[in-house]
Amino acid sequence: MGVKLSAMTTATTNNGPTRGPADHDVRDQIVTAATAHFRLYGYEKTTVSDLAKAIGFSKAYIYKFFESKQAIGEQICATCLLEIETDVRAAVDGAEGAPEKLRRLFKTIVASSMRLFFEDRKLFDIASSAASERWDSAQRYELRIQGVLTDILRLGRDNEDFERKTPLDETVSAIYLVLRPYLNPLLLQYSFDSVDHAPAQLSSLVLRSLSR
Amino acid sequence: MGVKLSAMTTATTNNGPTRGPADHDVRDQIVTAATAHFRLYGYEKTTVSDLAKAIGFSKAYIYKFFESKQAIGEQICATCLLEIETDVRAAVDGAEGAPEKLRRLFKTIVASSMRLFFEDRKLFDIASSAASERWDSAQRYELRIQGVLTDILRLGRDNEDFERKTPLDETVSAIYLVLRPYLNPLLLQYSFDSVDHAPAQLSSLVLRSLSR
Repeated sequence: MGVKLSAMTTATTNNGPTRGPADHDVRDQIVTAATAHFRLYGYEKTTVSDLAKAIGFSKAYIYKFFESKQAIGEQICATCLLEIETDVRAAVDGAEGAPEKLRRLFKTIVASSMRLFFEDRKLFDIASSAASERWDSAQRYELRIQGVLTDILRLGRDNEDFERKTPLDETVSAIYLVLRPYLNPLLLQYSFDSVDHAPAQLSSLVLRSLSR
Repeated sequence: MGVKLSAMTTATTNNGPTRGPADHDVRDQIVTAATAHFRLYGYEKTTVSDLAKAIGFSKAYIYKFFESKQAIGEQICATCLLEIETDVRAAVDGAEGAPEKLRRLFKTIVASSMRLFFEDRKLFDIASSAASERWDSAQRYELRIQGVLTDILRLGRDNEDFERKTPLDETVSAIYLVLRPYLNPLLLQYSFDSVDHAPAQLSSLVLRSLSR
C-alpha cells in the first residue's frame, strides 16, 4: 500500500507528459507482465483485474499508469509494429535500386509479420484487435508502410526504372491493396498457404505493372 | 411416422445415385429449412438435432438423406458458389476482348460475393466454414474461377493484348493471389472498406502488368 500511495503521489505531482524513471520502470513492469499474460490467455479475454492480480498490483494502481486495457495493448502493439517496420526499413535500405527494394519490402514484411504475430512473439491476438478496432498504433503503422512504398516508387520513377504515366497516389494505393493481405494480421491468418510463394510472385507481378 | 417409413423404404430400395422425385422433394425440403436455420442461428452452432426439431423430422430420417451436417452445408455452399460463378461467367462472356473481360471478372466476383455472403443471402457463416475447412465445394469453385482467369489470359495472349514472356501458370497464380482476398469470405469480411475501389484499382494494376 505504501508503494502504491507514493507512486500515486508521483503521478499526481508530475503532470508533464514525460514521467520520471520510477514511473517508467513501473510502466515497463506492467507492459512486460501484460504481454506475457495476453500471450497466455489472449488479449480479448483478459481484464485489467486479471492483470492486476497477475502482477500483484491493485487495479487502481494500474489505472494510474494506463487509462485502460487498450492503452496497455496500444503500447505492446506499437512496439511490435515498430519492430516489423524496422526490419522492413533495414531490408529496403540494404538493397540497391527501386525494383530490388520493392522485392525486399514484400519479402520482409511477410516474414517479419509471420514471426511477430504467429511464431516467436505470438502477438496475433493483440495485433488483430488493433487492426479490427482501428487502434492509432495500427493506423499509423499502415501509413508509415505506405510511406516506405511511396519512397521506393519515387526513386524508381526518378531513376527511370518505373513508368510515370499512372498517377503516383493510384499506384501506391493499388500496390498497398496487393500487400495488405500479408501485413494485416486478420488477413494473414488465412494466407499461411501462400506465404512461401506470394512475396516473390506478387512483387514480380507488381514490377511488371511498373515497367516502362 | 408413416411418411418417414415410406421414404426410408424408397431410399433403401433405390440404390442408384439418382433418387426419385419424392426423395428429391424431401432433400430440397431439408436444404431449404437448413438454409433458413443456418442464417438465423449460424452453421457452426446448429446441430442435426436442432435441424430435425425445426423441420419436424427425426434425426435418423435426415441422416437417410444426408450423411452429416456438412453434407447439407456442402449442398447449400455449392449452390451459393455456383450462383457467384454464374454471375461471373455471364459478366465475362458479355464483355468484348480480354482486358474488359478481366475487369468484369474482378468487378463481378466482388459484387456477387458481397451479395451472397453478406447482404441478400447472408451465407457467410457456411461459406467461411467451407473455406476454412477446405470443403470440396469451395476447392472446386476456386479451381473453376482459376479456369475462367486462365481462359481470359489465353484469349489476351492469342489476340496480342497481353504479353507472353511470363509463363502462363505463373501469371494465373499471381493474379489469383491478387483476387483471392475478394472472393474468399474469410478475407472478404475484413476488406469491406476497399470493395468499392479495389476491383477497378487492382484490375488496372493487373492489366498494366500484362501489357506488352
